[in-house]
Amino acid sequence: MRFDPVHIPLSGERFVAAYSICGDERQARETAHSICVEQTVEFPEDLLPEGDIPEHIVGRVETFSQEGAGRWTATISFASEVAGAELTQLFNLVFGNISLQEGIRLERLQLSPSLLHMYGGPRFGRSGLRQIFQEPRRPLLSTALKPLGLSADSLARLAHACARGGIDLIKDDHGLADQSFAPWSERVKRCAAAVGDANALTGGNSVYLPNITSSCDRVIERAHEAKRAGAGGVLLAPGLTGFSVMRELAADSSFGLPIMSHPSYLGAYLTHPDNGVSHFALLGQFMRLAGADAVIFPNYGGRFSFSREACQDIVNGTVAPMGRIASIFPTPGGGMTLERVDEMRAMYGDDVIFLIGGGLFRGGSDVTDTCRRLRDAVSSPFPAQ
Amino acid sequence: MRFDPVHIPLSGERFVAAYSICGDERQARETAHSICVEQTVEFPEDLLPEGDIPEHIVGRVETFSQEGAGRWTATISFASEVAGAELTQLFNLVFGNISLQEGIRLERLQLSPSLLHMYGGPRFGRSGLRQIFQEPRRPLLSTALKPLGLSADSLARLAHACARGGIDLIKDDHGLADQSFAPWSERVKRCAAAVGDANALTGGNSVYLPNITSSCDRVIERAHEAKRAGAGGVLLAPGLTGFSVMRELAADSSFGLPIMSHPSYLGAYLTHPDNGVSHFALLGQFMRLAGADAVIFPNYGGRFSFSREACQDIVNGTVAPMGRIASIFPTPGGGMTLERVDEMRAMYGDDVIFLIGGGLFRGGSDVTDTCRRLRDAVSSPFPAQ
Repeated sequence: MRFDPVHIPLSGERFVAAYSICGDERQARETAHSICVEQTVEFPEDLLPEGDIPEHIVGRVETFSQEGAGRWTATISFASEVAGAELTQLFNLVFGNISLQEGIRLERLQLSPSLLHMYGGPRFGRSGLRQIFQEPRRPLLSTALKPLGLSADSLARLAHACARGGIDLIKDDHGLADQSFAPWSERVKRCAAAVGDANALTGGNSVYLPNITSSCDRVIERAHEAKRAGAGGVLLAPGLTGFSVMRELAADSSFGLPIMSHPSYLGAYLTHPDNGVSHFALLGQFMRLAGADAVIFPNYGGRFSFSREACQDIVNGTVAPMGRIASIFPTPGGGMTLERVDEMRAMYGDDVIFLIGGGLFRGGSDVTDTCRRLRDAVSSPFPAQ
Repeated sequence: MRFDPVHIPLSGERFVAAYSICGDERQARETAHSICVEQTVEFPEDLLPEGDIPEHIVGRVETFSQEGAGRWTATISFASEVAGAELTQLFNLVFGNISLQEGIRLERLQLSPSLLHMYGGPRFGRSGLRQIFQEPRRPLLSTALKPLGLSADSLARLAHACARGGIDLIKDDHGLADQSFAPWSERVKRCAAAVGDANALTGGNSVYLPNITSSCDRVIERAHEAKRAGAGGVLLAPGLTGFSVMRELAADSSFGLPIMSHPSYLGAYLTHPDNGVSHFALLGQFMRLAGADAVIFPNYGGRFSFSREACQDIVNGTVAPMGRIASIFPTPGGGMTLERVDEMRAMYGDDVIFLIGGGLFRGGSDVTDTCRRLRDAVSSPFPAQ
């Protein structure tokens, strides 16, 4: 079949995705070229219609350089119009089919002005959350209500204890869904009320963030129900729901509360350095595009396998310039204890949310007291003066 | 903090997930145990309330055996109630946090009767699709409209040519979204009409399946708009949208058309044998739970890195017993040509959809003629008699 030459009205604007590619130089150059074709036309090049398709629709290798032994960096540009206005198509374009090939890792995006303009990003981000909590400087604190299996009433009592102790963001454990032993609506009503009661006692600003991860239609419903119940934000795992519904929620001004993202089910993109998506792009840039205000990830030195460098890469992704898209709070969690606060402030600085889960219960029999000591620890100047 | 003993009314019904775990025996046994805790209570075990939480909510290692050198299989059971009624929570429970750890691969699910009952699965499956096409025996044929960059009109002409040649399922390339050069609504209207016209000429039963991958709210809208325009099914990439919206669509009797799933962006789960989710579970079992009627995957020997064994694993997953959940069509694509039809029939048998993309254009200048030859090739008895 022969096609007529194709002319497409295009703006000429392009955006860039950077990839790490494994192999020897010849293989890596071939791979870089194949990404340009595979991610766009997916068609035998010699049979393409003449004109704008090979000239502008097919991706273009902009730079190619050595990153290390057997490892190369290619930056590839795509016409902004190919990404359309949908997050799904943007992700498809930069990593859809090549996710199925070995030895290609998406490292970072450098979006064009028109694409950046399409994505409002987080409604609050770092500065917006600091305003909500009226805390201009210190690290914020978060905890997770658990263990799974407690009744709604017990979880609410725990939420009350944590709020009295001054934890800023009290979230559901991400395993709390709509189970029979703590049904979603009942749990959210009770926990939101408990945190409200504690704030009334202390004059504090703690918020409760229920887990609204579910099918997309229910995510939106639950977000609004949570708000009506008095929740101050929500927890969402975009690896389970897809990223688009987070974007929809962040843009919904009738909702208008902070969104904390959980990395559940996303680990497959991160576990191998030669494949998947970098910590920087997935947990920094993608989360911001989709509108998360804070991103939870496993802290180094905990029970997960994230390195210190990976955690730093996430922090860098939460704050790297992305047009008008705000920076968001890195929220390291997992294995954190009171004893590690200084070490973690040295690593993360104070623009951070510390998430302490099971460790809260290691601090003695009075959870509220443990929370207060944590709050004191993060409120003191650092390094100590 | 001390909890009171917890009693939870539970049915006692449990379901099983099988994992491959890497390491020496001691490490692997520890990992198996940690999965039980991590995926449920995520809480220090010694601090758990007494009663039903450690007894029934925490996962339970049911079997542990050696699979090979440094590789072990653990089957772990969970109380059905912990999975709730949501696909997101089921995926979270079986692979949420442990996706972030190295050396754990989810191999297969063996769901309990109550969970199987919650998921209707595919509306059509293999037998339903065979009824639609009135083809009881032969392999079905599919192709993708491309290259990206063609106008809606050119894509429609291509669809017409393929339908005249007898291709059963004519789908959008998964890179066709809602780009300015072939806007979604216009494309779908034109392509559906073209396939309808061709059927009127030939008396055939070809269907057009537009790509409806987008944000969840638009997925549902587009599915219905596609149906009104005369499309006979849809293409959806659940790696981009999340799996739940596919389930929602499959259950929607006011829609009621076949769903073909595309593996875009899912590759990170599949590329490493020691991590992620097996081909069997992800492209077989998960797709069926979510309601796909056919699952596209890269054929072995094409430009992707899937092995013959991986493809067989997918086929096994499309047909393994899952209660009342129907078997679905494996749809190998990528690098397929007319010359490979016999080889592929030998491998896949005839309960398969062959997806031929760019290769269609290698067959000579007349696409319709190439399609007819393909159709003849798959319609002849095999092996030749």
